[in-house]
Amino acid sequence: MRTISWREGKITLLDQTALPHTVQELEVVDYRELIGAIKRLAVRGAPALGVAGAYGVALILQSAAKEKWSLDRIDSAIAELREARPTAVNLAWGVDQMKSIVPQGFAKVLARAEEIASEDARANRAMGKHGADFLIKKYGERKLRILTHCNTGALATTEWGTALGVVRELANRAWELSEAKISYRLLPDGAAASALFAGLVDAVLIGADRITRNGDTANKIGSLGVAVAASQVNVPFLVVAPESTIDRSLETGAEIEIEFRSDAEVTHFAGVATAPVGTRTYNPAFDVTPVRYISAIVTEKRVYEMGNGTTL
Amino acid sequence: MRTISWREGKITLLDQTALPHTVQELEVVDYRELIGAIKRLAVRGAPALGVAGAYGVALILQSAAKEKWSLDRIDSAIAELREARPTAVNLAWGVDQMKSIVPQGFAKVLARAEEIASEDARANRAMGKHGADFLIKKYGERKLRILTHCNTGALATTEWGTALGVVRELANRAWELSEAKISYRLLPDGAAASALFAGLVDAVLIGADRITRNGDTANKIGSLGVAVAASQVNVPFLVVAPESTIDRSLETGAEIEIEFRSDAEVTHFAGVATAPVGTRTYNPAFDVTPVRYISAIVTEKRVYEMGNGTTL
Repeated sequence: MRTISWREGKITLLDQTALPHTVQELEVVDYRELIGAIKRLAVRGAPALGVAGAYGVALILQSAAKEKWSLDRIDSAIAELREARPTAVNLAWGVDQMKSIVPQGFAKVLARAEEIASEDARANRAMGKHGADFLIKKYGERKLRILTHCNTGALATTEWGTALGVVRELANRAWELSEAKISYRLLPDGAAASALFAGLVDAVLIGADRITRNGDTANKIGSLGVAVAASQVNVPFLVVAPESTIDRSLETGAEIEIEFRSDAEVTHFAGVATAPVGTRTYNPAFDVTPVRYISAIVTEKRVYEMGNGTTL
Repeated sequence: MRTISWREGKITLLDQTALPHTVQELEVVDYRELIGAIKRLAVRGAPALGVAGAYGVALILQSAAKEKWSLDRIDSAIAELREARPTAVNLAWGVDQMKSIVPQGFAKVLARAEEIASEDARANRAMGKHGADFLIKKYGERKLRILTHCNTGALATTEWGTALGVVRELANRAWELSEAKISYRLLPDGAAASALFAGLVDAVLIGADRITRNGDTANKIGSLGVAVAASQVNVPFLVVAPESTIDRSLETGAEIEIEFRSDAEVTHFAGVATAPVGTRTYNPAFDVTPVRYISAIVTEKRVYEMGNGTTL
């Protein structure tokens, strides 16, 4: 199943806000609807946002052709889409991939967006293999207990997944020809340090929203705490992300813009208040894990073992 | 407002599961109802559980007198109450305080339970002063930004609070004669490390459910992650708890029994599923923070500065 695809003039998205109750598809024909879907997290996950950005430019050009937009209007729509969410570099990256092709028109842009979606799926498989190789070299071919944080599977990408892609690859190698399922447990964010200190985790694998040249990594809020706890008990902490997540224009994580989200995300759940009315919150959507807590960064190209001032 | 008190033959409890929507009191006349209220977290917080244990024995003796229970039945009811939740030492401690008085009958037991409730309130004030002294000595009299975890205010005790009691005391000293409110922000568990690394926190103050002789501290799940993150940025991490929380029969935290709770607490919220049906969880209610991450333990008696093998 593809999380995001182009079908008959529309972007079809799996609405992540409806999960786990309903597998519901959204069909988006207007770029403003797409921005709305991105902002309310119907589509999320850095690689998925990259593909959404690319398809979004195609959507804009399609509307522009139908409604005879001026070049200025096209440019401002593209800029608006590019900035829908600030932290994940992939959205801007996906939009920027289209820049030089926009003058060639809708058909070329759509073709390039389709390529980006396919490349994402291929890159995920390659990351899975590199990550699995790295872990098998370290631990041998045995069952591994992996902790992950935020969504790192197919939902975060077009298909397959980043950190969960490594887990799938490990499972495939360990139980090839079997139908063994990957067993899992769900744990609250606050229980990650407890699981690590209890010796229940062989490796932590996360995705990433933006990685700077020195290896500092922005990812879903909570990643930093997991990384710090892993470092205390010498559990490898791996970042699994496509090369497009590396932002070589930034030196360190201090330069990454962190998105803050609404109080209501913390004070309410499914419309039910969980805190007194008027409570203010500290609600960053991402945190930055300094590279000193990161063992390796796994991309479709290679495994970067971090430490001793390695840069990307 | 008292979180727990004895009125006209009943224990009156503030039902913590109804907050923040409703301030609702529960009147409990049967010890099994009390056990139910403890298990479903209507009353929680280690010091509050200590007082609940003490009043609970009074409740048992009251029923025993009315219904002419055998000594065996009394003993087994007391044992059942004592084991309603395993991690917080205070519940067992509160029950055990009554042991030698039980033969003297209901009136004496109730009088001792009332004493324990008053002592808890007094102890809270004393902890507040010791904690405030410690922090003012360190930082001078300036506004402080304190991070806390789990409920550490009046709800966790009979009144005033443990870690939040220190915050109240600091506020009283800093703005005496003013009506300045203590400003606060609510943050998700996963955002604590981010706030610490962003330099937004001067000190972390938590309560405790059980402290072993070496200073290892069991507290609400998530405390360990906060402590580890605080240690990385040299922010003092203080445990604020009454002497009765120190279990000198245990050497280290490895000996503390950790309560695990149901999958449903993690997979559902207010009856709404947040994970696929059948998802298994890792849901410990508490974690143990090794003493190496704890700067000091503040009780009503004194401040124990930890480090260099200090024991309690």
